[in-house]
Amino acid sequence: MWASAAGSRLSELQRSVALTYFKRHELFEVLTDSQLDILIDSVRQFDLQADDYLYHQHDHADSFFLLAEGQIKLSIIGVDGKQKVVEIVTPGKTMAEQVMFMPEQAYPLSAQAINNTTLYCISRNSCIQLIQENTEFCIRFLGKLCIRVDERLNEMISLTQETAGFRVAGYLVDLLPENSQDGYIIVLNTPKQVIASKLSIKPETFSRVMSSLTQKGIVRVKGREICVKDIEGLKAYK
Amino acid sequence: MWASAAGSRLSELQRSVALTYFKRHELFEVLTDSQLDILIDSVRQFDLQADDYLYHQHDHADSFFLLAEGQIKLSIIGVDGKQKVVEIVTPGKTMAEQVMFMPEQAYPLSAQAINNTTLYCISRNSCIQLIQENTEFCIRFLGKLCIRVDERLNEMISLTQETAGFRVAGYLVDLLPENSQDGYIIVLNTPKQVIASKLSIKPETFSRVMSSLTQKGIVRVKGREICVKDIEGLKAYK
Repeated sequence: MWASAAGSRLSELQRSVALTYFKRHELFEVLTDSQLDILIDSVRQFDLQADDYLYHQHDHADSFFLLAEGQIKLSIIGVDGKQKVVEIVTPGKTMAEQVMFMPEQAYPLSAQAINNTTLYCISRNSCIQLIQENTEFCIRFLGKLCIRVDERLNEMISLTQETAGFRVAGYLVDLLPENSQDGYIIVLNTPKQVIASKLSIKPETFSRVMSSLTQKGIVRVKGREICVKDIEGLKAYK
Repeated sequence: MWASAAGSRLSELQRSVALTYFKRHELFEVLTDSQLDILIDSVRQFDLQADDYLYHQHDHADSFFLLAEGQIKLSIIGVDGKQKVVEIVTPGKTMAEQVMFMPEQAYPLSAQAINNTTLYCISRNSCIQLIQENTEFCIRFLGKLCIRVDERLNEMISLTQETAGFRVAGYLVDLLPENSQDGYIIVLNTPKQVIASKLSIKPETFSRVMSSLTQKGIVRVKGREICVKDIEGLKAYK
């Protein structure tokens, strides 16, 4: 199943690095020190290179993941035989937690590394144990799933309702940290065709919108760096 | 907020009817008799007439619902100012449970009755209490949310990937009970324009697909009754 075998147990150094990632994640920050210790003991680490698959659609799902470094694209093969990107997972995010409690435990999407990527693998069993032991963790996990439903709903609405321009602008806005100032520089680590696929537009359309944003003085593009000169203009772009 | 005020407490008769609905729902069937008793004591009943709103998008959300009779459409107002139906809720289904544990407790969609409708309202507080008391209920609730994420994902994929014909056929297939035989009659209680909106197609397109299905001998339509003559043909229709 796994592109890189079964993942590896953590070394002492990896363990302390992992601990910092888990401690600052909203899902795991509610664990007691001893719960966190037990969890980290069961965690496996996956180091993937660009294009490596973590799992394929329909593979048996008995784990979810916390992404530490790199990017993962979640995709399906469309009716046209081409890969359609559904989500781009970025560092600090969990993925596939929404599969843990489904009757049919199978990954609904394929997961493939966009660049060099490190993930922590949390087993369903560890997850169930924590849910049973820690009500706050359970509530956080429920919250995570509720947000996931909402995200999918918003994507669905976006796909039926919004223009390509609005989607591209919205994608860039989502990359801005809270309270960003005009002049903030986004470094685009995700290939253009992956972003275009996620937004259900053609790569040419993505380029056309970026040109229009540049002409309007909203952004300035230099290689992979996008300087957002006018955040309000970006938010209002349609 | 509510079209019909705050709902009503259950009479003795209503209580015993409600009990049957809750007992046969996969979410609540794991409750003990005493947990179910306490839950039913806190449940409120809403009886809506066609077009009544249960709540509007962005209303404060402190309850979710079990639909007993009738149909509810969940919708947003699209960028064109028209109502866009996102989901049609049918008897025996819960709705809005995915809002209970979100940081921002607001309904993401409006809920409006399609026809005469009876719902049971379960408060967030009752829900939290049950989650804390009953691990199996908690796991079922998590499962419910996982399925909801998957449903939204599939809808999203359908909207970007599938033809209008495939979507209409898929909608009809979903209305067939398991192990249906050729000749099964579906009674379409949902107005055509509501179904079309949910499938993100025009009502004319819906009619055109129905004509094509009729011409191909896959269905026979008589008023609101659709006789599915060839279930495999319907499943394969694109």
